[in-house]
Amino acid sequence: MERLPGFRDFYPEPLPHQDVWSADARQFIFDTWRTVARRYNFREYDGPPLEPLELFTTKSGEEIVGQLYNFADKGARNVALRPEMTPTLARMVAAHERNYKKPIKWFALPQLFRYERQQKGRLREHFQFNADIIGEADPAADAELIALLIDTLRAFGLTEQDLVIRLSSRNAWHDFFKHGGGDMAHEYAFYQIVDKLEREAPESSDEKLRALGFSLEAVNTFIEKGAPTVELQSILDNLAARGLRSFAKIDYRVIRGLAYYTGVVFEAFDAKGEFRAIAGGGRYDNLVKLISGDKVNLPALGFGMGDVVLLEILKSRGRLPQFDSHVDVFILIEDEALRPPALKLTQDLRTAGFAVEYPLTPAKSDKQFKRAQELKAGFTAKLESDSYVRIRNLKTREEIVAGFADAANHLK
Amino acid sequence: MERLPGFRDFYPEPLPHQDVWSADARQFIFDTWRTVARRYNFREYDGPPLEPLELFTTKSGEEIVGQLYNFADKGARNVALRPEMTPTLARMVAAHERNYKKPIKWFALPQLFRYERQQKGRLREHFQFNADIIGEADPAADAELIALLIDTLRAFGLTEQDLVIRLSSRNAWHDFFKHGGGDMAHEYAFYQIVDKLEREAPESSDEKLRALGFSLEAVNTFIEKGAPTVELQSILDNLAARGLRSFAKIDYRVIRGLAYYTGVVFEAFDAKGEFRAIAGGGRYDNLVKLISGDKVNLPALGFGMGDVVLLEILKSRGRLPQFDSHVDVFILIEDEALRPPALKLTQDLRTAGFAVEYPLTPAKSDKQFKRAQELKAGFTAKLESDSYVRIRNLKTREEIVAGFADAANHLK
Repeated sequence: MERLPGFRDFYPEPLPHQDVWSADARQFIFDTWRTVARRYNFREYDGPPLEPLELFTTKSGEEIVGQLYNFADKGARNVALRPEMTPTLARMVAAHERNYKKPIKWFALPQLFRYERQQKGRLREHFQFNADIIGEADPAADAELIALLIDTLRAFGLTEQDLVIRLSSRNAWHDFFKHGGGDMAHEYAFYQIVDKLEREAPESSDEKLRALGFSLEAVNTFIEKGAPTVELQSILDNLAARGLRSFAKIDYRVIRGLAYYTGVVFEAFDAKGEFRAIAGGGRYDNLVKLISGDKVNLPALGFGMGDVVLLEILKSRGRLPQFDSHVDVFILIEDEALRPPALKLTQDLRTAGFAVEYPLTPAKSDKQFKRAQELKAGFTAKLESDSYVRIRNLKTREEIVAGFADAANHLK
Repeated sequence: MERLPGFRDFYPEPLPHQDVWSADARQFIFDTWRTVARRYNFREYDGPPLEPLELFTTKSGEEIVGQLYNFADKGARNVALRPEMTPTLARMVAAHERNYKKPIKWFALPQLFRYERQQKGRLREHFQFNADIIGEADPAADAELIALLIDTLRAFGLTEQDLVIRLSSRNAWHDFFKHGGGDMAHEYAFYQIVDKLEREAPESSDEKLRALGFSLEAVNTFIEKGAPTVELQSILDNLAARGLRSFAKIDYRVIRGLAYYTGVVFEAFDAKGEFRAIAGGGRYDNLVKLISGDKVNLPALGFGMGDVVLLEILKSRGRLPQFDSHVDVFILIEDEALRPPALKLTQDLRTAGFAVEYPLTPAKSDKQFKRAQELKAGFTAKLESDSYVRIRNLKTREEIVAGFADAANHLK
């Protein structure tokens, strides 16, 4: 029986096949995400992977249904696997925001699902690091969030040679569109043309822009000029004070596809431009209001960073650690009469916090030793009697005989 | 907009409402599960939360469909949210077992889903710690797995006064049924009657047993005698060698409802019997063969421990830590001219691994200090100039003025 196409199995390393994913690498990524988020005083939250369908259509319109895993449950509720986390966050914040001091700084590591026509290697689920700041309209919040994004990628060992944060602003484009005489009813259509500039033929973009009263030339001039708004300048200055200025640049080609962004938007890319975006985000000051049915009105912003592109980049830059299957101590049982004290020693060392393995059933000594090596054990511990053990450091080859009570002290 | 009934929202502590769950407690439970599993050299794996429906019906028969979140996806595949992890594990092991040394010791922390008629407080999803040993038929593997179960609960601070592991054996019941002249075609029906003994009226159980040629009296005598099989005795001896014997007792009332168990079965309960089972498991030596379509045949056993009952017990026993929202350092910015160096100090300390918070926007000093206290900051750091900072230990009230480069050394 096979898993569903577009879904992943995560195995312990070393990986048995090129078609499966590393559970160890996933945990390494999750641990790093959590560690950096906590340094920034972001608190973890989570919601259900299954939500009312309406939560997503309210935010994104009915078109999104075509990309969802949606169905009617046995209680005839229209439900969907979450394709993104922001609607759930907005729902949760709207329900209980009064109990939290503003700004709320929260993060989550949800698994997200999208039904897309199957393309080779195209996934239908991924994990995402979502970080959001809610309740602060000042660009200082945008800078704090972008600093978290940069620091998260730095924590993986990526440098300013590897990365670029492309900063842009819906406000800048709004002004361009308005002052250029655009019909405000077509503002979002205009954003979508800009969003596709890098992927579409210039003639096609120009034609679409002209239908709205603009030209590709005017748009390109605006992009090339890249004059920061007051807001963007304030973010750049803030990043400069932190020593992170060199990671960011103004790039108005970034505008983000989703309708709900309202202000600053940004994307993180590898500097060489070999990969898809590592992360993207921006301000969505109206979304909490929309999701809460006008009950709560809070400015907000956030980003999402997926695990798939990140993992590709870490691999290509040699930034993934070696995930050796390893234990601290392997207990050698050469005399089966000593198995009971060996089990006692195993228990004592595990209780003391060591990762300990031993042969579950009788085995030849050379086979036991080989297994200890395969597991990259730091030490072997061979029972000399029911209370003494010979401890061997497999790196230095030093040996010492210790009483059980003293054994833990020789395992560092 | 509301979340779906039976699903949970996880918020940061302190909790805003009794109807939501603690993301901090969840993470504490996950961390403890992972820590103990690793001490036992169990490696983490995961599979998709959505699987082909057939994976679950192959294992459990068509009846299970009534309890599943199942639907046809947009590619007309019959799929279901996983109600348990074992079929996925069997599928993954069957696919790549040749690449792993036996016994395979793996764990996972999946979220599982069951559609059940809504009852007050009844959940439709939960998280489970699943640990399995695959490829070892010897009871030494059962003992290792049960030791992991006991140690996991001990790691939460639960003691032998709090816990009991009820050990039983399908083999013992098989012999009882066979030697009592039972018709082997009704063996599983017999197990199901035994499984319900504690929940059903004695007359009703007796009637059902008599239809199979047994009596409640004979069954109760067998249970009361509780004579361990050779296999169970070997497990008890093994646990005794580890110093864990006092946690376990033979209790043949435990038989586990699922059809696929083949040998030793067990459940963990609170000693007072106030709560539902904390964990349950046993041997399923034929399942990998079944799931792999006879391609792979490996003995196996495992347990699952849910997060919901565990959390109830930890609460009732006062074993949950205080989840203070807290940071290491709160930076006080009383002179806005010093905001840029304050951002630099924030960055430096975060890079050094500290959790650091600061006022995003200008605020009065008493408000800043109050926020530092709310966050249970260990220290405040008030900038004296663009390179010197006054560090105050909020517990001891000691103060010291340090240069930026030296600040980290005064934060322990």
